[in-house]
Amino acid sequence: MTNPIITLTTDYSTNDHLVGVLKGAILKINPDAQIIDITHQVAPFDLLDGALAIASAYPYFPARTIHVVVVDPGVGTERRPLLVSGQNQYFLAPDNGVLSGVYEREHPVIVRNITSEHYFAQPVSKTFHGRDVFAPVAAWLSKSWQPGSMGEEITDFKRFTMPKPKEADGLLKGVVLKVDAFGNLITNFRAEDLSPESLEKGELSLQVGSHAITKLVPTFAYGSAGEPVSYIGSSGYLEVAVNKGSASKALGLGRGTAVLLVKK
Amino acid sequence: MTNPIITLTTDYSTNDHLVGVLKGAILKINPDAQIIDITHQVAPFDLLDGALAIASAYPYFPARTIHVVVVDPGVGTERRPLLVSGQNQYFLAPDNGVLSGVYEREHPVIVRNITSEHYFAQPVSKTFHGRDVFAPVAAWLSKSWQPGSMGEEITDFKRFTMPKPKEADGLLKGVVLKVDAFGNLITNFRAEDLSPESLEKGELSLQVGSHAITKLVPTFAYGSAGEPVSYIGSSGYLEVAVNKGSASKALGLGRGTAVLLVKK
Amino acid sequence: MTNPIITLTTDYSTNDHLVGVLKGAILKINPDAQIIDITHQVAPFDLLDGALAIASAYPYFPARTIHVVVVDPGVGTERRPLLVSGQNQYFLAPDNGVLSGVYEREHPVIVRNITSEHYFAQPVSKTFHGRDVFAPVAAWLSKSWQPGSMGEEITDFKRFTMPKPKEADGLLKGVVLKVDAFGNLITNFRAEDLSPESLEKGELSLQVGSHAITKLVPTFAYGSAGEPVSYIGSSGYLEVAVNKGSASKALGLGRGTAVLLVKK
Repeated sequence: MTNPIITLTTDYSTNDHLVGVLKGAILKINPDAQIIDITHQVAPFDLLDGALAIASAYPYFPARTIHVVVVDPGVGTERRPLLVSGQNQYFLAPDNGVLSGVYEREHPVIVRNITSEHYFAQPVSKTFHGRDVFAPVAAWLSKSWQPGSMGEEITDFKRFTMPKPKEADGLLKGVVLKVDAFGNLITNFRAEDLSPESLEKGELSLQVGSHAITKLVPTFAYGSAGEPVSYIGSSGYLEVAVNKGSASKALGLGRGTAVLLVKK
Repeated sequence: MTNPIITLTTDYSTNDHLVGVLKGAILKINPDAQIIDITHQVAPFDLLDGALAIASAYPYFPARTIHVVVVDPGVGTERRPLLVSGQNQYFLAPDNGVLSGVYEREHPVIVRNITSEHYFAQPVSKTFHGRDVFAPVAAWLSKSWQPGSMGEEITDFKRFTMPKPKEADGLLKGVVLKVDAFGNLITNFRAEDLSPESLEKGELSLQVGSHAITKLVPTFAYGSAGEPVSYIGSSGYLEVAVNKGSASKALGLGRGTAVLLVKK
Repeated sequence: MTNPIITLTTDYSTNDHLVGVLKGAILKINPDAQIIDITHQVAPFDLLDGALAIASAYPYFPARTIHVVVVDPGVGTERRPLLVSGQNQYFLAPDNGVLSGVYEREHPVIVRNITSEHYFAQPVSKTFHGRDVFAPVAAWLSKSWQPGSMGEEITDFKRFTMPKPKEADGLLKGVVLKVDAFGNLITNFRAEDLSPESLEKGELSLQVGSHAITKLVPTFAYGSAGEPVSYIGSSGYLEVAVNKGSASKALGLGRGTAVLLVKK
């Protein structure tokens, strides 16, 4: 019998004991759970950053994985805790849109408002529902596999639109979604935003901040030293990199920078 | 059969291979151990910070969990290695007071000086007892569950008093114990230091550094943007936060800052 | 039956979802794998730093451990993916020398060029072979234990010489290999570079940058406050430390600093 897998995606950082407490809270209920960190470095309270992290990672996990996603600026207020059943995986998160990227990819989803308080750690604190609500419910779910016992289905859950490029003046206007650990700028353009000619010739006309980029290469290793190049990254987004360097530092650009693509 | 759980709390950081080595040293003896990181970001050599981390986390773990706590400025000197049996969990640490918070909560404790050197990795280095003493003894304990075989009981182990607020001039004088990942200031006041009236009305008179705070809210999400508020946090301590911001940055304050509470 | 152990050593950092994706990619193929992080903080694209990390950690792991090492500046180019069988452990890495420290210690090794593409995640991306090549092959190996099925043996794999001290003008010239989390300077001198007299008397004549160090102590805890001392560290290298402080900060020195040892 394979042990159930529970993943964690939070903005807690690993600087203190909070992530350890989440894991203890899970193991106290199901000591056989295999707990996997996706990341704890979501930008604090940043729902879009959290939504990108879980949406980028969950498709690589096996069926029946339970994902706990806690980016929760409204903890202790009226916002609801959710249990979402996708095609073959589960998601626990506050109802604040942090699962928007999951809703985009998973069809159908069943979204439940978790109301079965007897599964919570009592007394439930006002500030740490990761420990008192999400971790315990994930652990009980990993034993029972009965999502229906956690609460009633709802349809008015919150979701926001993941930022998409917009067409204007013959240009596509996009944005740098995030900077990765190597300093690569990850934009919200995808291969389908590029012309077949562009993809074939390895050329494009991209403006990132005040920098013009014209090379579309298979991978960052094809760039000359110090030269910014673009390529379709491993998550399907167009990225800007500098070979063996940090594009973010070299160009002085970060998350939120406007990116313009000339349609050819 | 559930796998035994061994947790790690250290000041090693995760910047190099040291934590990996600890895990290898455990798995080489007991490959079935489930190893859980509590945190490796204890401030270097900081016994109080380590004591707070393990004391805050261990109560959430299941019975028979073995906690390895290595904050060890005196490694390689005469300080003794300890194995502590609490009510239903175990703790391995150097005898330097890093388990003081555990001693406060667990009654009774049996504290043993680990002397059974045949369980150590030989030769024992002078600088890495995490690898050569604590990890191997934890792993053997997770197989034998015989703490008595590790050494004789002692009573003269080191402990320090966790910092408590002190009364003076009609005020309670406390301190910021630490700053969490969100920039919240965690003080050493607890709910019992506040008057029932204060708790009921949601008011208090708190001075943190040169800032006066008067609002006592259920959770940080109740604060206006930029407004510092206080609330009883998830570990039972009074915390100061700024909604969706960092109180530490906004107020320019950190660990060790004096906090004054007017008793009402 | 003990679960197979797969370790990860990368330069991905834990700031985003990439490490989570690696783990998902392994668990999707072998949900029973026990995944252990060695470190994800290898300096980006730094083959020597990666080589030091894995060479320092792997000897502490049990037989049959599978080590995935991804520091891969040439991902997506012609560089080959390797599966290395050591005496009793396995290593997966790009053929760029990042296993040089392993090749130094393991005799004999069998080095294979991984060519069995049916084990890869298809389509293989140009930029994330950790996810599409190394993680899947590690997971399949942990089920089949058939390294021979992954590709043919090769002998022209890349390796570089780990930096060794050089004798010149009656001095041994070495270098600071890295700075650890405590700020200790780890040099490439070993106990055998010191005279027996030096080791016995606890004296040496070492110059690190412009600082002269004369004390050779059993462990950093023997230094006076603020005093830089040297000792043989837990990995066998001569280290320079300041008791309860950071030698790197106190001396203003870092990786790559020249170190001179007067032979006595």
